Amino acid sequence: MSLSAARSRILHAWRATLGGVTEQPMTPEHSSGTRLDPWFGAYAERAHGMRASEIRALFAVANRPEVVSLAGGMPFIEGLPLDVIGEAMQRLIRTKGTTALQYGSGQGEESLREKILDVVALEGVEAHPDDVVVTTGSQQALDLVTRIFVDPGDVVLAEAPSYVGALGVFRSYQADVVHVEMDADGLVPAELEATLTRLESEGRPVKLLYTIPNYQNPAGVTLSLERRPQVLEICRRHGVLVVEDDPYGLLGFEGDPLPALRSYDAEGVLYLGSFSKTFAPGYRVGFVIAPHAVREKLVLASESSILSPSNASQLAVDTYLETCDWRGQIKTYREMYRDRRDALVGALSEHLPSASWNVPGGGFFVWVRLPEGLDAKSMLPRAVTGRVAYVPGTAFYYDGRGAGHMRLSFCYPTPERIREGVRRLAAVVNAEAELVQLFGTSARPDDDPTDVEIPSPDLA
Amino acid sequence: MSLSAARSRILHAWRATLGGVTEQPMTPEHSSGTRLDPWFGAYAERAHGMRASEIRALFAVANRPEVVSLAGGMPFIEGLPLDVIGEAMQRLIRTKGTTALQYGSGQGEESLREKILDVVALEGVEAHPDDVVVTTGSQQALDLVTRIFVDPGDVVLAEAPSYVGALGVFRSYQADVVHVEMDADGLVPAELEATLTRLESEGRPVKLLYTIPNYQNPAGVTLSLERRPQVLEICRRHGVLVVEDDPYGLLGFEGDPLPALRSYDAEGVLYLGSFSKTFAPGYRVGFVIAPHAVREKLVLASESSILSPSNASQLAVDTYLETCDWRGQIKTYREMYRDRRDALVGALSEHLPSASWNVPGGGFFVWVRLPEGLDAKSMLPRAVTGRVAYVPGTAFYYDGRGAGHMRLSFCYPTPERIREGVRRLAAVVNAEAELVQLFGTSARPDDDPTDVEIPSPDLA
Repeated sequence: MSLSAARSRILHAWRATLGGVTEQPMTPEHSSGTRLDPWFGAYAERAHGMRASEIRALFAVANRPEVVSLAGGMPFIEGLPLDVIGEAMQRLIRTKGTTALQYGSGQGEESLREKILDVVALEGVEAHPDDVVVTTGSQQALDLVTRIFVDPGDVVLAEAPSYVGALGVFRSYQADVVHVEMDADGLVPAELEATLTRLESEGRPVKLLYTIPNYQNPAGVTLSLERRPQVLEICRRHGVLVVEDDPYGLLGFEGDPLPALRSYDAEGVLYLGSFSKTFAPGYRVGFVIAPHAVREKLVLASESSILSPSNASQLAVDTYLETCDWRGQIKTYREMYRDRRDALVGALSEHLPSASWNVPGGGFFVWVRLPEGLDAKSMLPRAVTGRVAYVPGTAFYYDGRGAGHMRLSFCYPTPERIREGVRRLAAVVNAEAELVQLFGTSARPDDDPTDVEIPSPDLA
Repeated sequence: MSLSAARSRILHAWRATLGGVTEQPMTPEHSSGTRLDPWFGAYAERAHGMRASEIRALFAVANRPEVVSLAGGMPFIEGLPLDVIGEAMQRLIRTKGTTALQYGSGQGEESLREKILDVVALEGVEAHPDDVVVTTGSQQALDLVTRIFVDPGDVVLAEAPSYVGALGVFRSYQADVVHVEMDADGLVPAELEATLTRLESEGRPVKLLYTIPNYQNPAGVTLSLERRPQVLEICRRHGVLVVEDDPYGLLGFEGDPLPALRSYDAEGVLYLGSFSKTFAPGYRVGFVIAPHAVREKLVLASESSILSPSNASQLAVDTYLETCDWRGQIKTYREMYRDRRDALVGALSEHLPSASWNVPGGGFFVWVRLPEGLDAKSMLPRAVTGRVAYVPGTAFYYDGRGAGHMRLSFCYPTPERIREGVRRLAAVVNAEAELVQLFGTSARPDDDPTDVEIPSPDLA
C-alpha cells in the first residue's frame, strides 16, 4: 500500500470512530444517551455525564501497527520470563489449586499482603499485613477510597495536571476537583496552603488530596524530599487525608527511591500501590495501605463491589514474588525505560526544538509544551493521520486547561520507534505552526467540561 | 481436647469475634466508626451505615474444621481436574502471555465473550458478543448496574427473601428495597403487579426488579415456565428494567434448563451470569448481557471502577472453555450437588420433623422454617457452639423479617458431613424449643434495619 493510501485509510478509520461523538452537539441528551435507548429516562444522576471521551476513540486507530503510539501507558512486558512464569502458574494450580480457584477474603490473601510489605519497604513504608487491602488494580483502590469519602459536591485536590483515570473516578462520584499547581519539584506547598485557605473561606469541604509524588502522570515531575513533610504538615493542619498514588516509585532511573509520604505519616496517608508497572497489569493486582478504621471501610466497600479480589490473580503474584527474581525484573525495567526516555528526549531536542519539556527521573511520561498558539487536541486527528499518537493535555485537567500541552509516553515503543514517532510528530507540529502563522489559530472551543472523562485502559 | 473444652474454645472465639459489634449500642456514631478514628467526620453519607454484619463474625469460627458449615455458598471445586487446568495455564502463559499479562479492553476479551454465548445458549439466550460485558464476578455486575441506574431513594424490587450480596449493593447506593412475595413457583405475578401499582400511587420511582429465577438464593425455588412471560409483561408495562441474576441456571438436578427471562426479551432484561458455580470462583469472571445503550454505560462505569477486567483471568476461563470438557464438568457438579441435596433433605426428615422446608430442583440452598417461636439469629451462637453453622433468615430481608427461617447450604460439605450437621442442628433446635416452651420466647429485638449488610464472600 502506498503511503498516501495508508494515510487515507487511517483518516477514514479515525473519522469513523470519532464521528459518533464529535459530530453530535454536547447537549445533556447526548451525554446521557439518546431517545433510541428505551432506558433513557431511568439512569441515575451520576450516570448522566458518563460518555466516552473523544480521545478514547483514538485508540482504535492508534493501536494499529503503522501508528507509533506515544499515547498509551501500557508497560513493555515482552521482556518478562514467560517460560518461568508459565511453569510457576502450573505448579500453583497443581499444589494450591483449590485455594487459587476458590472465593477468598475481601481483604486479600495474607501471604500476598505480607510480601507486599517487602516491596513497599523499598520506599521506607513500614506497616502490618493487617493494614493492607488487596484491590483489582489500584484503579479499584481509587474507586473505593472515593466511594467511602466523597459526597456529591465535596472537593478533591489534585495536581495540575493529574491522572485522567483518577479525575474520571472523582467526577463519577460527583466530586469537584480543584487543581493545585506544580513546578519542577512537584506540588508547591505554598499553593496547597493558599488553595486550602481559599476553599475553607468559601465553606467548601475538602476531603482528599490526590497526589502522585513520583514521576507523576502525566507531568513526569517528582515531589522533592524537602517538600514531602511540608505537604503532609499542611494537610494534617487542615484535616485533609492524603491519597498517595505510587505506581512508578520503584521505576526511578538514578539512585534510590525517595521515601513515600506514607513513611512519614501512617494515620494521614492512604498509600496506593500496584503490580501493573513493576510486574504486569494483566492480573489486576493493586493494594491500599490504610489506617485501621479506614481499612475496615475499604474492605466492606470492596466486598460490596466484587465480593473478593481474585484468588487466582493474588496467588499468581504471590508465587511470582516468591519464586521469581522480582527485584532483578524491576532493575531490567528501569534500564529499559531509561533508554527509552533518553531516546524520546534526544529526539525531541533534535526534531522539535520549538517545544519545551521536562526530563523525568523515572516513570513513563514526558510532558511537552507546544509552541505558542498550537492546540494539541485539535491537532490530534492530523497527528494520527501522520501515524503518530499522543494524549492531549486537556485530558489531565478538570477545568479545561492543557490545550497547549501533550503527554508523550516512552514505555511501550522501542527507542527506534520512539525516534521515528518524534520525527513524525515534528512534521505535524511544524505544519500546524505554519497554519497558525497564516490564520492566527488552529484551536477550537473546549468541550463541555462537565463530561465525565472515563479512563481508557490504554491511558493507565 | 475434650468435647466440652472444644465447645468452650469455640464459644470464646465466637464471643471474641462477635463482641466488638454486638456489645455496642447501634448509634449512628458506632455505625460510622468511633472517635478513635481520626477520619471519623470525613466519610461520605453512603458509608455511614457500612459496618460488618454480625453474621460475618460467624465465619471466623464456622470455617474451623470441627464445625459443619451449612452456611457458606462456596462451590465444591475439589473435583476439578487440577492437572489438566494447570497444564492449560502453563500453555496459556507460554503462548499468549503478553496478552494475558497486559491491560485489556474495558468490555472484556472478544474470544471469551463469544464463548459466553455458547454457555448462555443452553438457556435459550441469543445475543451478539458485542452485547456482553465481562465483569469481576457477577457481584461487580450488580454494583455497576446499581451505579448507573439507582439514585438515593429509588426503589429496587427484590424477591422476599433475596440474595444478601445484592441487598448490600442496593443499600450501599442508598436505594430502598421493596420485597415482592414468592410461593413454590417463584415470584407471584399478582404480588408484583400490586406492589408496582401501590408504589406508583405513592409516587415512588421503581428502577429495577432484581430476580434470581432459578434455584433462588436463599429460597431454593424456581420461577415457573408459565410465570416467566407474565413477570416480563408486567415489568414492561410499568417501565421497570429486569435484572436477571442466574448463577445456578445450569445446575438443575432434573431435565433441561428453563429458558432465561432474557430469552424472551432482549431490551427489557439485563442478564447476569457467572463462572463461579459452573467452573470456579477464584478467577472472578462474571458477565452481563445488556441492551446496546446500557452496555455502553456499563463499560464506562467498569473502566472508571477497575480500568479493565483481568486479562489473565479472562484468558484462563477462555482456555478452560476451549480445551476442557466444561459441559462434562457441569454434569459432574449437578450429580454431586443432587446427592448432597438428597442427603440434606433426608436428614431433615429424619432429625428435624418439627421444621418445614422446600426441596429445591437445583442450586445450593434449602430454606427452612423453624418451629413456631424460634429465632434463627439468636440461636446461632448456640448452634456454632454445637459445631454447626447456617445463615439466619434475617440476612435475606431488607425489612427485618426472616427470624423464623434459616438458609442451609448443601454445596460444600460431603453428604456424610451434611447428615452430621443436621443431627447437631436438630439437637440445638430441640434444646431451643424447650427453652421457648419454658420461657415463652428465645428471641431478641431485631437489629437496626438501616445497617448495610455487606456480603461476606462466604455467603455468595
